[in-house]
Amino acid sequence: MLHFECDYTQGAHPKVMEMLQKTNMEQTAGYGEDPYCEAAKELICSACGKPDADVHFLVGGTQTNATIIASVLRPYQGVLCAETGHINVHETGAIESKGHKVLPIQSFDGKITGMQIREMCEQHFQDVNHEHMVQPGMVYISFPTENGTIYSKAELEEISIVCQQYGLPLFIDGARLGYGLMADGNDLTLEDITDLCDVFYIGGTKVGTLFGEAVVFPNPDLARDFRYLIKQNGGMLAKGRLLGIQFLALFEDNTYFKIARHADELAMQIKNALKAKGYQFLYDSNTNQQFPILPDVVVQQLEKKYVFSFWQKVGDNHTAVRFCTSWGTKAEEVNQLVMDILR
Amino acid sequence: MLHFECDYTQGAHPKVMEMLQKTNMEQTAGYGEDPYCEAAKELICSACGKPDADVHFLVGGTQTNATIIASVLRPYQGVLCAETGHINVHETGAIESKGHKVLPIQSFDGKITGMQIREMCEQHFQDVNHEHMVQPGMVYISFPTENGTIYSKAELEEISIVCQQYGLPLFIDGARLGYGLMADGNDLTLEDITDLCDVFYIGGTKVGTLFGEAVVFPNPDLARDFRYLIKQNGGMLAKGRLLGIQFLALFEDNTYFKIARHADELAMQIKNALKAKGYQFLYDSNTNQQFPILPDVVVQQLEKKYVFSFWQKVGDNHTAVRFCTSWGTKAEEVNQLVMDILR
Amino acid sequence: MLHFECDYTQGAHPKVMEMLQKTNMEQTAGYGEDPYCEAAKELICSACGKPDADVHFLVGGTQTNATIIASVLRPYQGVLCAETGHINVHETGAIESKGHKVLPIQSFDGKITGMQIREMCEQHFQDVNHEHMVQPGMVYISFPTENGTIYSKAELEEISIVCQQYGLPLFIDGARLGYGLMADGNDLTLEDITDLCDVFYIGGTKVGTLFGEAVVFPNPDLARDFRYLIKQNGGMLAKGRLLGIQFLALFEDNTYFKIARHADELAMQIKNALKAKGYQFLYDSNTNQQFPILPDVVVQQLEKKYVFSFWQKVGDNHTAVRFCTSWGTKAEEVNQLVMDILR
Amino acid sequence: MLHFECDYTQGAHPKVMEMLQKTNMEQTAGYGEDPYCEAAKELICSACGKPDADVHFLVGGTQTNATIIASVLRPYQGVLCAETGHINVHETGAIESKGHKVLPIQSFDGKITGMQIREMCEQHFQDVNHEHMVQPGMVYISFPTENGTIYSKAELEEISIVCQQYGLPLFIDGARLGYGLMADGNDLTLEDITDLCDVFYIGGTKVGTLFGEAVVFPNPDLARDFRYLIKQNGGMLAKGRLLGIQFLALFEDNTYFKIARHADELAMQIKNALKAKGYQFLYDSNTNQQFPILPDVVVQQLEKKYVFSFWQKVGDNHTAVRFCTSWGTKAEEVNQLVMDILR
Repeated sequence: MLHFECDYTQGAHPKVMEMLQKTNMEQTAGYGEDPYCEAAKELICSACGKPDADVHFLVGGTQTNATIIASVLRPYQGVLCAETGHINVHETGAIESKGHKVLPIQSFDGKITGMQIREMCEQHFQDVNHEHMVQPGMVYISFPTENGTIYSKAELEEISIVCQQYGLPLFIDGARLGYGLMADGNDLTLEDITDLCDVFYIGGTKVGTLFGEAVVFPNPDLARDFRYLIKQNGGMLAKGRLLGIQFLALFEDNTYFKIARHADELAMQIKNALKAKGYQFLYDSNTNQQFPILPDVVVQQLEKKYVFSFWQKVGDNHTAVRFCTSWGTKAEEVNQLVMDILR
Repeated sequence: MLHFECDYTQGAHPKVMEMLQKTNMEQTAGYGEDPYCEAAKELICSACGKPDADVHFLVGGTQTNATIIASVLRPYQGVLCAETGHINVHETGAIESKGHKVLPIQSFDGKITGMQIREMCEQHFQDVNHEHMVQPGMVYISFPTENGTIYSKAELEEISIVCQQYGLPLFIDGARLGYGLMADGNDLTLEDITDLCDVFYIGGTKVGTLFGEAVVFPNPDLARDFRYLIKQNGGMLAKGRLLGIQFLALFEDNTYFKIARHADELAMQIKNALKAKGYQFLYDSNTNQQFPILPDVVVQQLEKKYVFSFWQKVGDNHTAVRFCTSWGTKAEEVNQLVMDILR
Repeated sequence: MLHFECDYTQGAHPKVMEMLQKTNMEQTAGYGEDPYCEAAKELICSACGKPDADVHFLVGGTQTNATIIASVLRPYQGVLCAETGHINVHETGAIESKGHKVLPIQSFDGKITGMQIREMCEQHFQDVNHEHMVQPGMVYISFPTENGTIYSKAELEEISIVCQQYGLPLFIDGARLGYGLMADGNDLTLEDITDLCDVFYIGGTKVGTLFGEAVVFPNPDLARDFRYLIKQNGGMLAKGRLLGIQFLALFEDNTYFKIARHADELAMQIKNALKAKGYQFLYDSNTNQQFPILPDVVVQQLEKKYVFSFWQKVGDNHTAVRFCTSWGTKAEEVNQLVMDILR
Repeated sequence: MLHFECDYTQGAHPKVMEMLQKTNMEQTAGYGEDPYCEAAKELICSACGKPDADVHFLVGGTQTNATIIASVLRPYQGVLCAETGHINVHETGAIESKGHKVLPIQSFDGKITGMQIREMCEQHFQDVNHEHMVQPGMVYISFPTENGTIYSKAELEEISIVCQQYGLPLFIDGARLGYGLMADGNDLTLEDITDLCDVFYIGGTKVGTLFGEAVVFPNPDLARDFRYLIKQNGGMLAKGRLLGIQFLALFEDNTYFKIARHADELAMQIKNALKAKGYQFLYDSNTNQQFPILPDVVVQQLEKKYVFSFWQKVGDNHTAVRFCTSWGTKAEEVNQLVMDILR
C-alpha cells in the first residue's frame, strides 16, 4: 500500500536523524538551555527577520496551542477561532481544560475574515449584558488551515488590523507552516507572518522532525515567564536539546523550506490529475493536503492500492477524501497515484 | 414605569420575608445543617414523590449549573446543550472555567430532541479519532427553556431514554421550573420530572425567594460528596438556614405553585392581547415569558410607559421583545398593558 | 443552651432586616446595578478615605477569596499565605480548583511577617530552576486572622513594603474586619488598610448581614473586568441590590463599627474572666474569638450550658477551645458565662 | 569536565538510536496505534507478570504525573505526597493547574509511611467540617524517591494495605524505576510493584531513551478513557511509534535493567569512596543518586574537574551535593572521580 493518509507516518528527515545520531553521546544542560537550542533559535530569528524575537521549543501541537492560549488569556476570556479550527474540534477540549471557551466563527474552508472578528467583538462589547458572556480575548488562525487553504497577505493584514483595534493578540498555528509558505500562489513570507501576528509557531512534526514545534514571539514582552507555562503544561523536554538539534538540522541550509516545497509540488501533481479528470474539490488548496470529491466507485478502486482519509459524504454516491503528501513522499509514489487517477 | 423586563426585579414573596423575619434571631448550626433545611428538604422530597431523594440548596443559578456539571463529568467530557442554553451563552464561561466544553446542539426555540442527542453520540463514538474530541458526558436542558417553551412528557421521555442508552446523566435546569409546570398545555408533573432525569433544580430566585435554588438528585448515589463540591464552588452559604427557610415558606402550602400559576395567567392575558392584534411571536410560549414581534412604532409607544427587553431585530421595521411576568406582578399592571396593546 | 460556637448562628442585625423589608417590593435593575448598591459603594469609599476606589459585592467568603485570587494571578503563579490561612485549609481547595497553588508560610498564631515573604521570594528567584516551581504571585493575609490575632500598623507596613518590592499584590481577607478594627490595642484604621494593600474585603456575613462581602480595590486598575470574574465564579447575585441594601444599612451611621465593638467588648469580658482564673490562651486575641486552654473538667462543666468549639487537645487533660461573640451576642449571656467561668 | 550533575545529559542508549534509525522511513499509523507500540506493550506486560495490564506511552514525567492524577481524582480531592515529592515542588504547579491540591506529608528522606497516610485520612474523615477541606483522593510515592531512597517490600505492602482500606488508588512515580529495582538491598521486583499499586510508570527519559514514560495500569478498569486524557493533556505524540520503538529496544533483552544496574554499580563505587573518607550522607541511597555532605574546600577542589549539583548548605563549612550516574556514565569517569575523592 502507498500512504497518503497524513503527513506524519514516517520518522524524521535523514538530516535530522544524522545530527541526532552524531550528537547522541554529548553531554549538555537540560530543559532547552544548551548550545544547540541557542543556535537553532538564532537561525530561526534570522529567518524571521527579527533578531530579538523570543523562540521556545515545545514537543507537540495540542500542547503548544494550549500553552500559548493559557499564557495570553485572562480567566474570563475566550479565543476566537474558525468553527473547524483544530483547537475547537480535535484537541479533546485542551483549551477548555485550561478554563477557556473557544468562540467559534462560521467558516466554509477553514478561513475567517477580519470582518467576522470585528462583528463578533462589536456584538460582544455593545451588549449591555456583556459581562455575562465570555469576552473575546485573542484570535487563533491556522496557516495553512486544516483544510489546506491559505490566507493572502491582504487577508492577513486585515485580520491583523482588526486584532490591533480590539487589543486581541493574534496567534497563528503553523503546524504545517512550511507547506503554506511554499505553496503556489502564496504571497506571504515568513517575515510577513512575523510582522503581522503576536505569536506563531513553525511546525516540525509534520515538516521533517520526529516531533517539535518552534514558538516565535516577535515581541518578547508577550513571552514573559513563558518557560514557567511550558513546564506547567508538560512541554519542557528534559533533553531539550533534541528540539534544538532538529530545528538546527532543518534551518541550517533552508532544508525546511525545500522539503516543504517538495511536498507541495507532489500535491499539485495529484491536484492536476484530479482536475484533468474533472473532479471537484471540497476546498481549493495548493498545499500538501488535497480534498477531492470522488465518485464512490473511484474511491473503492483507489483504496485497493492507496491509503487516504475519508473526509465526508457528498450526496448519495460521492465522497470527499483527503490525500496528503509530506517531506517524505516519493515522486514515484505520486506518479503511480497520478496514473491510477488518470486511468 | 411598569416593569416587565425580567422576573427578578423585586425581593421575595411576603411569606418568605415574614418567615425570615420571624426566625431572624434564632441560633442554629450553619452550612445548611439546621432544622429548617431539614424540614424544607422533606417537603421537597414529598412534592417530588421521592422520599429518599437527596436535596441541596445553593445560592444562584450559574453556581448551581457549574457545580452540578463539574460533579458529573470526567475531565475530557463535555455537556450537550441547546446552542441557546444558558450555560452556553450567559454564564461567562463558568462551565469552561471548570474545564469542560459545552457541546452545542442546533435549536430554534430553546429545545433539543432525543434524536439530536443520539446523532451527536453516534457521530462521536463511531469516529475513529474520537479520542481527539470531547466525549459527550451528560445532557443539559432547561424547563422551561430560556425562550419560554416547554417539553411535552413524550419529548422528555424520548430524551430520557436516549440518555440512558448512552449512559449520559440528564440534568434539567429549572430556574423557572414553577412557571413551566403551571403553564397551560403542560402535561408534566414534578413527579415526572423527578422520574425522568438524574438531577434537576427547583428555581427560587425567579419564583418567590430572595435567592436560592433547590437541587434534587432523585438517586442519591449521583450526589456522592456533593457538599464538598458546593463548598469548593463557593455555594455553601454560612447561614445556610436562610435557604431552607425560604423554600419552607414556599412549599408549606403550595405557595410555590400558586404564585407561578399567577404569573403564567397574567402572561397569557398579555399573549392573548398580542394575538388579538395579530402580532406574531418568536417562540410559542405559555409560560411567564412572551416574545412578540412588534412593529417598531408600537415598541416606541409602549416604551414610554413600560420597561421590557429588546430581543432581536426582525426585518427592517419590526423587533422581537420580551415581556416577563413574575410572582410579584400585579393584575392591574397587566390590565393596563393589555389595554395599551389593544388600543 | 447559650451559643458561643461561631459568629454566624443568627440572621442579620435588625436594621438590615428592616431595610430589606421596607424595600422588598420595589423594582430595580439586577446584578448590582441599582441605586442601593451605588449608595452603599459611595459610603464605603468614603469610609475608606478613597473616593475613587472600586467596590464590588459578593455573596460569601470562599467565593470572594477564589474570585479575587483568580483575578490577580497568572496560571503559573501561587499565593503566599500562612499555613493556617483559610484559603489553605478550609475552602475545599477552591484556590487550587482555579489552578493555583497555595504557598504556605509557617505561622504559630495566624500571622506572617514581611521577612518571611522576602525569604520565600528570594529563595524562589535565586534558584536556577525557578521555572520548575510555582512563582510567588501575590500575598494573602487575614485581618483579624483565623486565630483572632491582628497585625500592628508597623507589621502591616513592613509586609506592604516587601510586597511592593517584589511586585506582589497584597490581599487582606477581612471576613471579620470590623472585629479587628475595633479591637483593644489595634492601631490600624480602615483608611490605613486601604492605603497598605491592593485589595481587601469588608466582611458582612460575620458582622451583621445575612450574607455578603464588600470587596474594595483602592486602585481601580487592578479591578479591570472584575464583574466578568464575579459572574464566572457564581458570585453575581441576580437580586444584587440585597447586598447593597445590607451594607447601606450598616454603613449609614457606623452601625458596622458599633456592633463590632459590642462583640469585642463582650469577648474581652470573657477573656478577663478566663485570665482571672489563671487560664492560658493558645493565641493572644483581643477580637471576638478567644482561645483559652481549659482543664478538661472545666470544659465538661461548661458544655452543659454553653455551646463552643473544640480547637485542639493540649497535653493529657487540657483542651484548647474557642468562644465566639458576635454582633448578636447579648450582655446577659456573657454575664452568665463569666460567672460560670469564675465560679 | 566530567558530568555527574544529572541523569539526562545525553541522548539515548545506542540500541535505541539504532532502532529509531532502522525504522525511520517506515510508514505506520500515528498516535501510538502502531505495531511497535503493540509489541512494546506486550513485552512490558510480560515483564510485569500481568498479561492484561493496560500500558500507555507518554512523553515526559510532569505530563505523565499530571495526566494520571487528573484521571483518578474527582474535583474536590487531593493527592497525598511526601512534602519533597516531585509533584509538590518541581512541576510548576502542574497538579494544581488541573484543579487539585497536593496534600503534603512530612518526610526526611523522600519516603512516607502507611501510618502517616492512615493518620491523615483519619484526621480528615473524623473532622466534623471535613467537607470544608480537600478530601484525600489518592497517594503518590516515587520509587526510588527524589532523594535516591527506596521502599522495602514490607514498607510498600503497608502503604498498599492502608490505601486499600481508605479506597485511595496508589500511584508510583517510576521516573528512575530501573535504578531502584537494581539497587543493592532492594527486595522489590517489577512484579511486586505491579501487584502493590494501582498505576505506576517505567521511566525512560532517565534510563536510556531520548524521552518517554510507560504508564502501567495493572487493572485496566482504572484506565478507562485514558487516551482521551493523554490527548487533552498534550501527551499524545503524533508519531507515537517513537515511544514504542524505544521501549521495545530496551525491553527486548532486558537492556533496561542491565543499564540501570550499570549506573547503580558506578554510584556505589562513588559512595564507597566517600564513605572511606569518612564523609556523611544526607540520605542513605544505593541508587544512582548520591548525596554526600562535603567540606566546602573539597567541593571547591572537585568543582574544577567535575560537574555536580548543589543540594543544600550544612552548617558553616559543609555542603550537601548530589552526584548522579546514568546508563551512559563510563567506568573510567567514575574511576577518576573515585581517585580524586580518595586523594
